[in-house]
Amino acid sequence: MQSATVEPVRVMPAKEVSNPLSTTKTQHSPAQNRSESSAKTPESVTQSLKSHSLAYREDPDHGIRVPVTEIALDPSPNGKANPAFQVYRTAGPGSDPVVGLEPFRAPWIEARGDTVAYRGRERNLLDDGKSAVRRGEASAEWKGTQPVPRRAVEGKTVTQMHYAKQGTVTPEMQFVALRENCDVELVRSEVAAGRAIIPNNINHPESEPMIIGKAFLVKINANIGNSAVTSSIAEEVDKLQWATQWGADTVMDLSTGDDIHTTREWIIRNSPVPIGTVPIYQALEKVNGEANKLTWEIFRDTVIEQCEQGVDYMTIHAGVLLRYVPLTANRVTGIVSRGGSIMAGWCLAHHQENFLYTHFDELCEIFAQYDVAFSLGDGLRPGATADANDAAQFAELDTLAELTQRAWEFDVQVMVEGPGHVPFHLVRENVERQQELCKGAPFYTLGPLVTDVAPGYDHITSAIGATEIARYGTAMLCYVTPKEHLGLPNKDDVKTGVITYKIAAHAADLAKGHPGAHERDDALSKARFEFRWRDQFALSLDPVTAEAFHDETLPAEPAKTAHFCSMCGPKFCSMRISQDIRDEYGSEEAQTAIAEMYSGMRGKSQEFLASGGKVYLPELQVPGSPDTLEAGSGSLN
Amino acid sequence: MQSATVEPVRVMPAKEVSNPLSTTKTQHSPAQNRSESSAKTPESVTQSLKSHSLAYREDPDHGIRVPVTEIALDPSPNGKANPAFQVYRTAGPGSDPVVGLEPFRAPWIEARGDTVAYRGRERNLLDDGKSAVRRGEASAEWKGTQPVPRRAVEGKTVTQMHYAKQGTVTPEMQFVALRENCDVELVRSEVAAGRAIIPNNINHPESEPMIIGKAFLVKINANIGNSAVTSSIAEEVDKLQWATQWGADTVMDLSTGDDIHTTREWIIRNSPVPIGTVPIYQALEKVNGEANKLTWEIFRDTVIEQCEQGVDYMTIHAGVLLRYVPLTANRVTGIVSRGGSIMAGWCLAHHQENFLYTHFDELCEIFAQYDVAFSLGDGLRPGATADANDAAQFAELDTLAELTQRAWEFDVQVMVEGPGHVPFHLVRENVERQQELCKGAPFYTLGPLVTDVAPGYDHITSAIGATEIARYGTAMLCYVTPKEHLGLPNKDDVKTGVITYKIAAHAADLAKGHPGAHERDDALSKARFEFRWRDQFALSLDPVTAEAFHDETLPAEPAKTAHFCSMCGPKFCSMRISQDIRDEYGSEEAQTAIAEMYSGMRGKSQEFLASGGKVYLPELQVPGSPDTLEAGSGSLN
Repeated sequence: MQSATVEPVRVMPAKEVSNPLSTTKTQHSPAQNRSESSAKTPESVTQSLKSHSLAYREDPDHGIRVPVTEIALDPSPNGKANPAFQVYRTAGPGSDPVVGLEPFRAPWIEARGDTVAYRGRERNLLDDGKSAVRRGEASAEWKGTQPVPRRAVEGKTVTQMHYAKQGTVTPEMQFVALRENCDVELVRSEVAAGRAIIPNNINHPESEPMIIGKAFLVKINANIGNSAVTSSIAEEVDKLQWATQWGADTVMDLSTGDDIHTTREWIIRNSPVPIGTVPIYQALEKVNGEANKLTWEIFRDTVIEQCEQGVDYMTIHAGVLLRYVPLTANRVTGIVSRGGSIMAGWCLAHHQENFLYTHFDELCEIFAQYDVAFSLGDGLRPGATADANDAAQFAELDTLAELTQRAWEFDVQVMVEGPGHVPFHLVRENVERQQELCKGAPFYTLGPLVTDVAPGYDHITSAIGATEIARYGTAMLCYVTPKEHLGLPNKDDVKTGVITYKIAAHAADLAKGHPGAHERDDALSKARFEFRWRDQFALSLDPVTAEAFHDETLPAEPAKTAHFCSMCGPKFCSMRISQDIRDEYGSEEAQTAIAEMYSGMRGKSQEFLASGGKVYLPELQVPGSPDTLEAGSGSLN
Repeated sequence: MQSATVEPVRVMPAKEVSNPLSTTKTQHSPAQNRSESSAKTPESVTQSLKSHSLAYREDPDHGIRVPVTEIALDPSPNGKANPAFQVYRTAGPGSDPVVGLEPFRAPWIEARGDTVAYRGRERNLLDDGKSAVRRGEASAEWKGTQPVPRRAVEGKTVTQMHYAKQGTVTPEMQFVALRENCDVELVRSEVAAGRAIIPNNINHPESEPMIIGKAFLVKINANIGNSAVTSSIAEEVDKLQWATQWGADTVMDLSTGDDIHTTREWIIRNSPVPIGTVPIYQALEKVNGEANKLTWEIFRDTVIEQCEQGVDYMTIHAGVLLRYVPLTANRVTGIVSRGGSIMAGWCLAHHQENFLYTHFDELCEIFAQYDVAFSLGDGLRPGATADANDAAQFAELDTLAELTQRAWEFDVQVMVEGPGHVPFHLVRENVERQQELCKGAPFYTLGPLVTDVAPGYDHITSAIGATEIARYGTAMLCYVTPKEHLGLPNKDDVKTGVITYKIAAHAADLAKGHPGAHERDDALSKARFEFRWRDQFALSLDPVTAEAFHDETLPAEPAKTAHFCSMCGPKFCSMRISQDIRDEYGSEEAQTAIAEMYSGMRGKSQEFLASGGKVYLPELQVPGSPDTLEAGSGSLN
């Protein structure tokens, strides 16, 4: 992730920093700004993040800078300095939850002159559920600045796709290019072609632009949200900050309990990453959980409510057509998507086509006014490996492809959601089929889980499928936590899900040969080889856990600088032997000589031997009687 | 895993059971027989294993029976019974650690008449390390029966490969066939061809025969063992039982600390699974950790010591040739295999060829007398993704292929070890190359880890690579625990490693289309769909964790029989809607009618509609105006 092709990176000390993205904190500790601290982050182990700091990658020509996490490294044992390592950062500059983040994109949006502030939809207490109506307010009203909503000037389209198609490079695209370390033209052309999206509602100016598309780094989404059974607004904001701290690229608020509107307000105002929702969940709450009472009007009003708040992308289950529903009848697990079953239930109750499908063009018109992206939901995704790649799933995908085209006619950005539960050998077909049918629109998948037999470990079963599907072109992976199928994730589960998916996404980046992806692996492995324990921790996806695990076996402070590990102990060390080998054979001249000997050539090898080098010739090696060609002796012995 | 092609399974109540494999326990609880109970298994949650019991799959014609775990299931909500589900069991019948297991294979071995009991090597206190010499004994001498070692009658070969090549079907092969639910001829022919091994030293008659080969279920190995820094004999025996309890198919004892000999004695006498070792570790202890003091004589003596004890397979790093060592000089992490670096260190110190290579034929002669299998160590495996598939690694593989052939000439069973750290897109090449060069000899890999950046989560990074490499033919996967690179695994880590690798192995079985592999997935998914929570837990790889996670969100007992889950809550339920769909469209006649309508045919569909069925025709569907063909009306509306 280190700068290579773009402007040289200038790292500004934090105190010089002013707007936008101002911050007074450079030290970065997971225990700070948290209303609750995890059991896994006692004070002692947060030391490992001391070497992490907030820095900036700058593009002064365009007045843009992108926050990165900079990791300071110790010198190598030979005294050579190791340059600080920069990694992609999703945590943003940090915020006080009751104040929120600065709307740093607001000037960019206003400067385009194609939007207007307007009064917005009337607040309805039912937006926060029945208890709010009873109480006369939500349980913890948002006290920070209440932004005035904006929308496109009549007749204008304000989506990044629209600008990209017109050949306009926006500051959002510049930001993304700097962040991804790529040419801005790649960003513009991929967005124009629909192969990538930059989800950023004009009413969420606090968010840092990011891109979802297969030409870019694989992204991950973390789901949070309350339910009828659990959790407070503060907990959800805390989960948001916790998830982005560990690397979530977007967050979906899937709340289904009380205070949905207000919880979302707190989340959006504090979120440095795009926020996604499934608006049918809130619409269902407004009709008391009875799917057959849903109407297009209620849904439309909910969508506008969320557009005005700043939701960046919305899952719309418009592909669950009436005629596909019977195709699921004999599945092992029927319809498992919550949104999918809501719409299937509605279709059957009314004997009518899915209103999300019949009103799809109206949705496009609305989304075009705010730059909200579609996440076309796969309501018929398989919920068991036995149901994978079946008629119902692929029939829906055909419709999602049709809807993708329709949205593009409105210049609305689109990604397409994917499964679910799929055995490993059938995973690849999912992404290849989606990419072909949907003309390269970004694929956004949930796992998939490659077996059904491991509830409690479905972050793992799904990370296996996620790596495979991302390798072949999935652009964003929706995380799965250990609680999948069993309960609602707590803060530890959120972290486990995020780290597990960072692994899948990064493994796929490596497999795709994404430029620079291997640099972090190489830096960490070098630190490991050189027994720079603190650097090994600092460079890892979860420094806190790495250090804590190390300390369980060898807790003493000297063990972190010791030149051995718990595996072999001090008497014998593989790494030490390797270092001896490097000293003897690592020079360029030694390696050239060895290569020549292997290929049967002379020349450099003679010089090397004459200078005292020692090498063992493969051609002359006889089992049971090893032959050595030693310099000096000039003969075989 | 349910019986399909072999004799009908007769499940005997445990009280009828006598020798061999006798047991008086049918209820199977992880907290029993454990010297230490895990933090994750409080009494309350072990309830989920109440439905697990020890049962037997019988082959009365050959007097053989194989223990399986039987899972009792509740009836479906429609009242239909669900048959008990049998799963492959590695835990054995259970043992009291100070007594050990019954040597139930002893009669089979004696009946062949090709082995003799003999006095064996003299006990040397140095086998247990310097402290034992000082003390005059090991810290916890084995008090159970001390078996008299056996070896082949002069001039005989007693390996399963030898019998298989001669066309002899042994009881071990019958046992394996019953266990794998396949034809015994498949077992014999794969062993004869070297494509599978049955590691079972004649001096480990307590072990239940199992097979490692790509035509069979993918197996997993768990590493245990003390080190200079930690742990007691009791802890290691406990880890052995814990690992097999959760599904380890073999266990490697990698002890490097004190009491190596005695720890191994305790382990072997209690192990229902084959035990593997890396004898160079013990040999190194005998020369005070100084690699250059190693000699063939010391190594040979150590190997015989372990053959007599009953070690079933041994890792031998005979492919680390002197001339390959310089090829590792400029790797990011050099040589990371402990055994590999010991031998590389020795080669360099002496300027001589690896004595394991030069004395390989003698090793074959020894192994042939005990039926010990080779696990040809990959001492030059990559320890960083940057070093994967490089010249050093593949040069060694060429030599391992040569050694495989040499071992086969002695009818000695062989598997070949593989990496390590390999980026996802390079994984497949490893197994395909090994299978081609080594003529199908079983591949046994450590992961591989698909990225270096996640210390603390390397069970996950490696399970991703393990699934990929097993899909393409790796026969056994060596587990990696969360402590990899950081410290020594405790009991929780052992369990996490085993379950994670059960996931990878099972996912690969599914991907390979292994007969019957999907049955457990389907049974669990059916239980999930029917809200049979207890059955969902019981059928999962880790019932304890699944139940505990469920209880965190919905702890009350009624929630385990409730027809909803914490995700949607009681008001709305996807599963309920799916059930409605099944009731309406799940019948054979409805599905036939739907299929005909989709294909534009008439006939059955007319009958279905006339009988009151309702279906929505795809051909007539117009966006914005849904068309429904309803029976009765006979017209479109």
